[in-house]
Order: sequence, then C-alpha cells, then structure tokens
Amino acid sequence: MAIIVKKFGGTSLGSIELIRNIARRIALEAGKGDSLVLVVSAMAKTTDELINLAYQISEHPSRRELDMLLTAGERISMSLLSLALQEEGYSSISFTGSQSGIITDERHGNARILNVNAFRIKEELDKGKIVIVAGFQGVSQSKEITTLGRGGSDTSAVALACYLQAKKCEIYTDVDGVYTADPKIVSNAKLLPAIDYSQMLALSYNGSKVIHPRAVEFAYKYSIPVEIKSSFTFAPGTMLIQEKSFKEENMEERHITAIAHKENLLSYIIPETEETIDLLKIWNWEIFKYLAIENQLELIIEEKYDKEIQYLLSQKEIPILKTENGIGYVTLVGLGINLDPSFLADTLKLCQPFHIKRIQHSDKTIEIMLPSSEVKDCVQILHSAFIGCEK
Amino acid sequence: MAIIVKKFGGTSLGSIELIRNIARRIALEAGKGDSLVLVVSAMAKTTDELINLAYQISEHPSRRELDMLLTAGERISMSLLSLALQEEGYSSISFTGSQSGIITDERHGNARILNVNAFRIKEELDKGKIVIVAGFQGVSQSKEITTLGRGGSDTSAVALACYLQAKKCEIYTDVDGVYTADPKIVSNAKLLPAIDYSQMLALSYNGSKVIHPRAVEFAYKYSIPVEIKSSFTFAPGTMLIQEKSFKEENMEERHITAIAHKENLLSYIIPETEETIDLLKIWNWEIFKYLAIENQLELIIEEKYDKEIQYLLSQKEIPILKTENGIGYVTLVGLGINLDPSFLADTLKLCQPFHIKRIQHSDKTIEIMLPSSEVKDCVQILHSAFIGCEK
Repeated sequence: MAIIVKKFGGTSLGSIELIRNIARRIALEAGKGDSLVLVVSAMAKTTDELINLAYQISEHPSRRELDMLLTAGERISMSLLSLALQEEGYSSISFTGSQSGIITDERHGNARILNVNAFRIKEELDKGKIVIVAGFQGVSQSKEITTLGRGGSDTSAVALACYLQAKKCEIYTDVDGVYTADPKIVSNAKLLPAIDYSQMLALSYNGSKVIHPRAVEFAYKYSIPVEIKSSFTFAPGTMLIQEKSFKEENMEERHITAIAHKENLLSYIIPETEETIDLLKIWNWEIFKYLAIENQLELIIEEKYDKEIQYLLSQKEIPILKTENGIGYVTLVGLGINLDPSFLADTLKLCQPFHIKRIQHSDKTIEIMLPSSEVKDCVQILHSAFIGCEK
Repeated sequence: MAIIVKKFGGTSLGSIELIRNIARRIALEAGKGDSLVLVVSAMAKTTDELINLAYQISEHPSRRELDMLLTAGERISMSLLSLALQEEGYSSISFTGSQSGIITDERHGNARILNVNAFRIKEELDKGKIVIVAGFQGVSQSKEITTLGRGGSDTSAVALACYLQAKKCEIYTDVDGVYTADPKIVSNAKLLPAIDYSQMLALSYNGSKVIHPRAVEFAYKYSIPVEIKSSFTFAPGTMLIQEKSFKEENMEERHITAIAHKENLLSYIIPETEETIDLLKIWNWEIFKYLAIENQLELIIEEKYDKEIQYLLSQKEIPILKTENGIGYVTLVGLGINLDPSFLADTLKLCQPFHIKRIQHSDKTIEIMLPSSEVKDCVQILHSAFIGCEK
C-alpha cells in the first residue's frame, strides 16, 4: 500500500472551521487505499503568540525553554485534527516529533535532522490508521525537545516521506502552487505545473514563500516527489521534478522561469575579525545574502531579526560599521540565463526607472538589489517583459 | 539496439598515433552490439593555428569566413578517424555538422542549436556503420555554416544524444573525470564517481574544464545520461546524475562537494549606459562574472579576449573607466552550504592568508575573488580543510 505524506501549514489550520474542512477532505481521500500521514504546523499565529508570551517574561528567553513552549503549538493542532478525523468516522492517532522518531542535533531553535526512525508511524499505518505528526519539532540524542527553525514543518514532512518511501509528499499552502511571480503582485502570474528542484531551490532561497529552501534541498538530495498545492481548493498544484523533460521548439532556447522577491531587509556591515568568525559559528538566523569585501562583512537579513541580532552583536562587542534598512531584492531565475548576456542587457534596460544598488548573478539567477519600496513595481515590469501573460 | 554517443576532444585526437589508439579502442567496443556515434573536435591546436592564419590576413576577420575556415578543423579529424576505423576493418562514415542536421541560428562564432534533424546518422547506424560527426559546427536555416562557440563539441554530442535517444553520452577528455579539485593543483584530489547536474553546472560555470556549462545545461534540461571519462585509460569516469540518491549517515549534513577555480581574469569597469546595453546584445565572449553597481558595470572575462573586446569597446566609443588584470576566483560548491553560516565562517578563517577582494555566494556556491597568483594556494588550503584526503 502506497504512503502519501501531506503537510498542512498554519494558515490552512487557522480555525476550527478550517481544521474541520481539512478533515472532511482527508476523509474523502482516505477511502482510496493509500496510507496517509498528515504533518501539521501550529495553527496560524499560535507560534507568534507563544513567542510573545515568552518575551513578556524574559527579554532573552533560553532557547531550550522556548523550544519546550513552542512545541505546544503543533500539539494543539495535531490533536484537534485527529479529533476532527475521528468525528468523520476515521481511526487516527497523533504523534509528537519525538514520538515520530525525528532525531536532531542539540541546536535548540534551529536543529538539524540527523536521522528519522519512524517505526511507530509505520505500525499505526499498518493498523489502518491515519497518522498525524507534529511538524517543526524533534528530539535530540540526549532526549531534549528541539525545534527545526524556519521551514521546519516542510522539512519534517519531506524527511518523513523519505523514511517512509512515500510515493508523494504534498505541501498544502494558501496558494495554488508555484507561480511565475507572486500573484499578489502580478495579477496575471501563471501557475507552473512543474519546476525542477534546482530552479525551485533558487526561487525559494531568493524569497518564494511556498516552500522553505531547506525542504527543497532535502527533497532534491533524496529525490522525494513533492507537490505544492492549495489546501483550500485541493486543485492540482506544482510538481517538483528532476528536470523539464520535454523538448522546446527551439532546443537551446533560454528563458526566465519565474521571479522571486524579498522586501524589508536590513544590512549590517561589520568588521571581518576573529570575533565575526566566532559569531557566525553560533549564528541562528537566516542570512539572506552576504558579501565579504575589503575586510568587512555585509550581512543582509530580514528586519524582524534586528533586535535579537543587535543584542548578540553588542554582547560579543562587535561594532556595526554601517546599517541600512528598507532593502529589497528581485531575482530572475532561469536555466543558463547567464550564458547569454542579452538577459543582463534587458535587465539593465528594464531596471533603469529604479534605484538599483547592485546586480549580481549565479549560474541560474540575476539578483537585483534595490529599495524595498520599489520591489513590487520592479517585479511587475520584469514579469511583463520576460514572462508576459501568454505563458 | 542502443545508441552510445562518444565525444573526443582535441587533446584526445592530438596526433595520428592518438587517433589510431582511439580507433583500436572503438573497434574493441564496436562488436558489443551498441550503435556508435563519435563526435570529434579538431585535433589539438588546429583551431588556434587556423585562427592565427586568419589574423595574419586580417586584423578583424569576418565571422562568417572565420566559421568557414575553422570548420575545416573537424573535417580533418573526422575523416582521419573514419579512415583509421576502416583500417581496423570497420565500416564507418563521417558527417559534417550540416550533414548531421545540427540546425542553428545565424549567430556566427557563437551559434545556438535550434533543432537537430539527424536522420542521415540514423540511416547509417541502421546499416551497421559507425558514424563520425564533426562537433562544434552546424548550419543555419539560411544554409550558412556556423560554429557553436566554446564548448561546442560537448554541446553537439549532448544534442545528438538527445535526438537519437542514446542510452549514454560519453565525453572523453584528458583527465579521468570530475575531481574534488584540479588534480594538477591538489595531488590528493579525489575522483567523483557521480555528481548531480546542478552541482556540475555550478562547477563548470566556475572554472572546471572537463565539460562546458552549456553542455551540462543541455544534458540537465533533457535528462541525458552523461559520463565524463579519460580517452587514455578508458576507465570508469564521473556520471552526471539527477541527484545523489543515497542516504547520508547524518541526513541533513551538508558538505563541500568540490572546488572550482579560474585564473588569469581581467576586469573592465564601463559606464552603464544605453551603449553598454546595446553592446551586451551583440556580445560574443563568455562573461565569467558581472557586477552592476552605482551605474557602472564590471565585466570579468578571460585575459585572452582582451584584444578583441578592447577593439569592440573602442569601436562603440565606450570608455573603460578602470581595468585590472591578474584576477582569480576560487569557488566552493555544495548543496545547501549557505543555509549554514559555519561554511562562511570557515571560509573567512581559511582565507585570512590571502588578499581577498570579494566573497559572494549563491544557493550552492561560495565564490572567492582574489589575486590570480594566490589561486593555487587557496585551492590547496580549502581542499585540505573541507574535503581532505579520506573522501
């Protein structure tokens, strides 16, 4: 019997009514013969509320206790979903990350998965039960409760799909899949029926929110078939695949597959010293971009991490040489686009109305740094020129 | 009957003796039942000699006539190899790019493949012949002879493998495959038995010479199984695959797969104007890196293109604001390495002895710009620290 792992994010589980809806949908599928494992995040806003509570008590709460607190979030959503399924007449059981055998290292708040040992899930599936698993959490080898950091539930789902040799891992979210640009910004952005892991990795690294880069990396590494789709419509979404595997009219034609963006970023410039190197060794936040130049290190991060990072820097007595907020990035993703300088030429031309700070590139990206306030206009103009509405 | 496409580069065909050796090797395999298509480059140095002849006549030879001249190179090597095979008692036939149905656009010197229509190759294979094809060349829709630019023969081979639905495309070269670093620099660099397309793309973009990025891009796009191997030993080389497809001890562990480097680069800084944009539209040389910053565009290219580019810039009246030679790059490649800042920390620490100009990154690379003269030492130190000798 094939196993399907389905992951539901916080917005999909944001209210009792939404949880009931999901249970009803699952019930429709549960009769079809596949075994189902449902990985859940905490209900929308729960994690933020719990963090807020902790910070009311302590300005710098211990990461160990914070993990203990936060893991209550998925405990709530998973038991509610299990109850809702039982109401539908299905036999279900919920497991914490620890019960599911998600073994991590000791890094509280940002733990990495060492291994998965999900024999309890297998046993319950064999009994015909629907298994619900708390995403985002694991247990260390010294039996401490850990959390996986941002994108943790996506990563849990993909890791379980790997262990269980699932035929598919479905990531349910509040949009229909991966679009050529954020449909909230570009009204005629098109849904991509499929995209290869490597371009998806570039998109998610550069701001696409539908799936976390860490989960894409995992899926890529272990060839897990992943579909990103809507939890509201259950319509076909975007499949992550190995390659495009169809022939173009023009075999060597290159094009922009999609555009990612990121707003509200903050840049620190700090001296590149032994202290900085030590700091990076214990660094716990996502670094969106970095640039080392002239014995200085520029770190570009999301503005929301500002307070914590400022605190860490002051604790370590590392001076901030310069700081700038209101930074944004727009990134074009396409296979081979930097083997043809005409993409750079078109980008430079189209970006003339904007206050471009820097344009860099990798083998499959053109990365435009500009004021955050100009990001949306820039995405619209580039989408219209490079992708248009016919695609 | 399965088809195998084998591509032999110029160094593998550098003398009559080497051509005879290859014919003998091919003869050993030809009896095994697979149909063989052999794609050849010009004999080593032939292309340079032909270019040299052209420049003795004209300082700026027309690209159309240059293509006509250069395509003589593969014509020589393919007919010699065919003769050598016939001496071994095999039935063989050689075809130019045009006869092979490699249809390209009109861009002389750097044409892109539009389509492959290799029915003549199929017919001859069906008759039991070994087919030898001139790499690097094609024919435009207006029946002009074109060349595919750098890496052209690799691209021809992969494109033919795609059209012929070959079970494998073998790229024969003067090294045993893809190493963790250039074995000429790192004596204990290890041969990688396999690497995924996406990491290979990053390596070849960043200086690895065994296969051209354009051919990797093609192979990736159409899922062509490619093996890079030695034409001297015929030992198993490196397979380009979709993913690693084996489980690590530590599932989420990240590591540096290999290190690429590039020496003898030149940087121009030119103003970013309409003229620059027009220039990029007709640009015919590989741009190794670019960086747009403060209305200036920095282009980093191989020093050998200097003369031609200077000429073009002066013709278009684009001033060079700054130029610098003796630039090098060392690039670390590994899946997910920029999700863990400790790789950056280690890189900064290990690079302290060097005169680092800039460190940038992409999702799977850390790219270090430094003096060309320091490249070899830097590769050695980073290889020893990140990859070591046990791998």
